[in-house]
Amino acid sequence: MTVHHHDGTLVSTQTPALGDTVTVFLRARANRVFVRSTPDGEPHFTEAVVDRVDGDTTWWRAGVEVRNPVTTYRFLVDGRWVNALGTVDHDVPDAYDFRLVTYDPPPAWARDAVVYQIFPDRFARSIPRAAPDWAIPCDWDTPVIGRGPETPRQFYGGDLDGIAGRLDHLERLGVNTVYLTPIFPAPSNHRYDASSFDRVDPLLGGDEALARLADAVHARGWRLIGDITANHTGDGHEWFTAGERDLYYFDADGDYESWKGVKSLPKLNWGSAELRRRMSTVVRRWLGPPYGLDGWRVDVANMTGRCGADAYTHEVAALLRAAAGDALFVAEHAHDFTGELDRDGWQGTMNYAGFLRPLWSWLRADELDLPDFLGVPGGVPRRDGRAVLATMREFAARLSWRTLVHSWQLLSSHDTARIRTVVGDADRQEVAAGLLLTLPGTPMVFAGDEWGLRGVNGEDSRTPMPWDRPGEQDEATFGRYRDLIALRRGTTALRHGGLRWLYADADALVFARETPGEAVLVLARRASGAPVRLAGLPGGENVYGGAPDLRSGDALPADGPTFQVWRLLT
Amino acid sequence: MTVHHHDGTLVSTQTPALGDTVTVFLRARANRVFVRSTPDGEPHFTEAVVDRVDGDTTWWRAGVEVRNPVTTYRFLVDGRWVNALGTVDHDVPDAYDFRLVTYDPPPAWARDAVVYQIFPDRFARSIPRAAPDWAIPCDWDTPVIGRGPETPRQFYGGDLDGIAGRLDHLERLGVNTVYLTPIFPAPSNHRYDASSFDRVDPLLGGDEALARLADAVHARGWRLIGDITANHTGDGHEWFTAGERDLYYFDADGDYESWKGVKSLPKLNWGSAELRRRMSTVVRRWLGPPYGLDGWRVDVANMTGRCGADAYTHEVAALLRAAAGDALFVAEHAHDFTGELDRDGWQGTMNYAGFLRPLWSWLRADELDLPDFLGVPGGVPRRDGRAVLATMREFAARLSWRTLVHSWQLLSSHDTARIRTVVGDADRQEVAAGLLLTLPGTPMVFAGDEWGLRGVNGEDSRTPMPWDRPGEQDEATFGRYRDLIALRRGTTALRHGGLRWLYADADALVFARETPGEAVLVLARRASGAPVRLAGLPGGENVYGGAPDLRSGDALPADGPTFQVWRLLT
Repeated sequence: MTVHHHDGTLVSTQTPALGDTVTVFLRARANRVFVRSTPDGEPHFTEAVVDRVDGDTTWWRAGVEVRNPVTTYRFLVDGRWVNALGTVDHDVPDAYDFRLVTYDPPPAWARDAVVYQIFPDRFARSIPRAAPDWAIPCDWDTPVIGRGPETPRQFYGGDLDGIAGRLDHLERLGVNTVYLTPIFPAPSNHRYDASSFDRVDPLLGGDEALARLADAVHARGWRLIGDITANHTGDGHEWFTAGERDLYYFDADGDYESWKGVKSLPKLNWGSAELRRRMSTVVRRWLGPPYGLDGWRVDVANMTGRCGADAYTHEVAALLRAAAGDALFVAEHAHDFTGELDRDGWQGTMNYAGFLRPLWSWLRADELDLPDFLGVPGGVPRRDGRAVLATMREFAARLSWRTLVHSWQLLSSHDTARIRTVVGDADRQEVAAGLLLTLPGTPMVFAGDEWGLRGVNGEDSRTPMPWDRPGEQDEATFGRYRDLIALRRGTTALRHGGLRWLYADADALVFARETPGEAVLVLARRASGAPVRLAGLPGGENVYGGAPDLRSGDALPADGPTFQVWRLLT
Repeated sequence: MTVHHHDGTLVSTQTPALGDTVTVFLRARANRVFVRSTPDGEPHFTEAVVDRVDGDTTWWRAGVEVRNPVTTYRFLVDGRWVNALGTVDHDVPDAYDFRLVTYDPPPAWARDAVVYQIFPDRFARSIPRAAPDWAIPCDWDTPVIGRGPETPRQFYGGDLDGIAGRLDHLERLGVNTVYLTPIFPAPSNHRYDASSFDRVDPLLGGDEALARLADAVHARGWRLIGDITANHTGDGHEWFTAGERDLYYFDADGDYESWKGVKSLPKLNWGSAELRRRMSTVVRRWLGPPYGLDGWRVDVANMTGRCGADAYTHEVAALLRAAAGDALFVAEHAHDFTGELDRDGWQGTMNYAGFLRPLWSWLRADELDLPDFLGVPGGVPRRDGRAVLATMREFAARLSWRTLVHSWQLLSSHDTARIRTVVGDADRQEVAAGLLLTLPGTPMVFAGDEWGLRGVNGEDSRTPMPWDRPGEQDEATFGRYRDLIALRRGTTALRHGGLRWLYADADALVFARETPGEAVLVLARRASGAPVRLAGLPGGENVYGGAPDLRSGDALPADGPTFQVWRLLT
C-alpha cells in the first residue's frame, strides 16, 4: 500500500519562513517525478532529482518555495498524483495535498508531551470542604449519577492541592503534561458555566492553590494546561449579571442566544471589541508566573464566534493565540476540524473525529449498549480496519504534519464513555492504548483510564479516582499504559518519526514509524486472523507485547487481540 | 450506483434566507433516515419521515434549518452517510456535504444561459483598420502563429461592430449569452495587458461600438458579458505609467511583482483602499446602460489578491461582487476552485478542473502530441470513464448546486487547445459537446468549435472565424451543436433537473437528468463496448443521436463513439 511515500517529516524543515525553499523527499520507484505547489494560487511544477538509492528504495528530492503562509504541495509520479491520502490515478482537489505552514510553531516542549486529563472535582481532595449552596454533597465513594438534574450538582470536593498531592501517581504512569478542566468559579461540578474568569474557584483552593500546583508540576519538569470557555459563560457570570449585554447576543425582547439553547450558558458575542479585549486579558493573565499555566485547551472552539451570520471563529482563534504568546493553544473540536486548523489560531485539536471515533468503531465490544455515537444516532457503529484507516487518513491528510502531531489523540474524555466500557475488556483496551501511544499525535490519557475505570457517557465517566479502593485499580492495565508511555518517551521514531501504513484488513492494522536513524513496526490486532507477511521487511527486536523477535520474511502474529511493537534492524 | 440519491435540486428552495427551514428529499430504501446539519459548527440531527412511495422508490423528507450563510447537510441512512459523493460506509470530513447558501443568488437569466465566447480580434471585422504601432498587420486568412514573440502582436482587426454583424450565426447556433474577452485598450491582440479600464479600445470601435453591440445583443433577448483583469494591468496602464506605486507591489529598489514574473503585467496590490475604490467603480461603470454589460468574467481570479503573505482574494471577490449588483460574476479559475466559491464573491467559475480536464482525459485522441496538460507535465493523460467520473464528482460535490450550475462548463477556450484537436475527430467531439450540453453547469462554446476548428494551444486556437472559407466550416458539427443546444433549451430537465449517475465503465457514462415532471437518460460512449442494461429503467423516446426508442429492459447501444438522449416515460 506504499509504493510511493512522503509524509510531513520528510522535509528539510517543519518550521519554514516565508521565502524559504524547503527540500522535500519522496520514496518512489519511478521514471520521472515532479513536485507541484500553488504559489499565489497558481500551479507550479519543479522536477525532482534522485537524491540517493538505498537498496531497492529510491529517494527523490525537490525544492518547494514557501511563497504563502500555507504552502500546499503534491507529487506527480509517472502521471499519477501522490498526496497525503496516497497515490491516486485521477485528478483530485488540493484538499489532501501536503502542507508547509509558516505561522509560529507550537512550543517545542509540546512535541514530546503526554497529556493527563484531570476533572478537578473528581481527582483528589486535600481537605474536606463544605459543599456550596447549589451542590449535593457526596462522599468520595458515592456513585456518580450519569444523567439527570443531580448530575452537575454532585460535589465531591476534589481540589488543586489534592492533585498536587497525587503527582507521584502521574510520575509512575509517565505522563509529563497535566490538563485541568475548568478551575474558575461556577455553580456546577464541571465549571463550564463560569461566573468569573478572574479568580480560581475557592472551592479548589483559589489562586494560591493554582500557583502551588503549577510549582509542583514544573518542579517535575512537566507542563500545566488550563481550560478556557470562550463560547459562553454561565448566566451567573459577573458580566452577565451586571447586564453587560453587548458582550452577549440579546434581542429586543431581552432574550439571548445560548449554547445549544441551554439558557444557563449565554453565548458570547465576538463582534464586541470589549469582549475581545477582556478575553485576551484573561488568556494572558493565567499564563506564566505567578499562576503558571503553559497553555490552554479552548472549549467548544467549533462554535466559538459562530452565530447565524456572524463568523468570527478564525478571528477569535488568531486573537487569542496572539494573546497566548508562546503557550500551547489547542481547540476542543468534537466535529470536523479540518477547516479550522493550519491558520494562525489553534495549534491543534482534540482529535475526536480522526482518532477516537474510528478507534471506537474498530474496537467496540460485541455487546455494547450506548444509545448514540457521541451524538450520532444509532450507537457506536461496527467498522473494519480498512474503514477506520480510511477515516484516520482522511482527517490526518487534511492537516499539516505539525498540526497533526500537536493535536491530542484520545480514547476517552470527560465528555465521552470510557474506553474500557466501549471496548469491553482489558486486552482490547491495550490495543487502543497502544495506538494512542504509537501513532502521530499528542497522547492524552483521561485520568482513571489507566486503571480501567468504566463509564457509559461523559458525566458517568467523571469517576472519583478510587485511591482507596484497590479492587477498582486494574494494575495490569496501569502497567500496560506505563510501559507504552515509556516506550514512546524512549523512542524518537514514535515521537518524531514519519508514518507509513503497511497493511490493513478487517482485524489488523500495521504501520511503521521512521526517522533517519530508527524504525519501529507496529501491529494492532483486534481479533485473531490470517497471518500477515510483509514483503521486504527486515528483522526486528520485539520491544512491546511479548511476541518473538522478527526475522526477515516472518509472518506477524495471527492471534488477537494483541498489540506488538518491534524495533527494526535498519 | 445510486441506491440512495439526493442532489441540490431536491430541496424546497435553492435560494433560502437565514432562518428558513428548507425541506430536503432523499430517495432511499431504508429503515431509518436522519439529516445532519451543523448549525454554528455543531452537528444536529433531525429524523426524516417518509414523504411518499412511488412504485419501488421511497422518498424521505426532513427539514434543515438554514442557520448560517452556508449550511451543510448530509444524510444518515441505516448507519451509512450519504453526501454529495454518494454513499460512504465510514466517517468522512464535511467537505462533500450538500450545501445551502443564503448569499444573493446569481441573476435569474443565468440559469438558462448558453454562453458563446468571442476573442474580439479574431471573430469578425466591420471595416479595415490600420494596425497600431505594436502590431503585425494580418489579413483575415493569415495563419495564426501559436507561439513566439509575434504571437501577441498579430493583429487581425476584428471589432465590436464586426461581432454585431454576425449575430445571425449565433442565433442559428442557438446561444443566448455573448462573452467577450477584454475590450479595453492594450498593446496586444489579447488585451489582458490593459492600458486603461476607462474606455473601450478605439481599435474595437470604442465606447459607442460597445453600446451598439449591447443593444444588438439585448434586442435578441440575449446577454453580454465582459472580461475584467483584476490581478494585474499592463505596464502601459495609465496608473502604472503615472507612477501610482501604491496600487502595485513595488519594493525599495523599484522592482515590482508581476503575473508569473512577466514584467509587462505588474500585479495589483489589493491592500490598497484606493485600488479597491477604483476597481469597484470600473466594475460598476460598464454594467447596465449605456454600455450594457450584464456581467463579468474575472481573469485569473485564483491569483487575484494573493501575494506572499497577502490573502485578499475573498475580500476582493466580495467587494467586486457587491459593486456588480445584480450582474453575473464568474471567476476564471483554471485550478482547484473548490475553496473559493459559495462565499459572497464569485457566483461560479470556468470549470476547467471539474469538467474540461476530465473530459479531455477521457476523450483524447489515441494520437495526440500536446507537450503538457494545461501546464501539467506529460501531456493529456488517458483515463477511463470511472476515473473521469470520480474527478467530475469530486469537484462538483464540493460546490453548492447553485454554484455548480452557474459555473461555465467548457471544452476549449482561448487559453487551451481546441476540443477537435484534443479528441481528434467529429464523432468524439459530438460526445464532448453532448456532455457539455446535458450535464449540470452553464455551457460555454468557444467561437469556432462549432465548425470543428483546430488549435494546439490557447494562442493557436485564436483562429479568425473562417466566414469566407466554407471548406473550413464543418457543417455537420455545427448541426450537432445546434441540435444539442436546442435540446437543452427545450428540455427543462437538462437545464434545471437533478443529476443521477447510473453507470460508468471505461468507455461509457450513463446518467439521468430529472425534474418532477420530466426525465431524460443520457448515454455518452467514447468507443464500442459491452451493452449496458439498467435494471428498472422505463421506456423512452430517443430525442438525440438517432438510436431506437427504448423499451423497458432494453440494452443501451453498444457501438461507439456515440451520444444518445432519450426522454423517459415517467
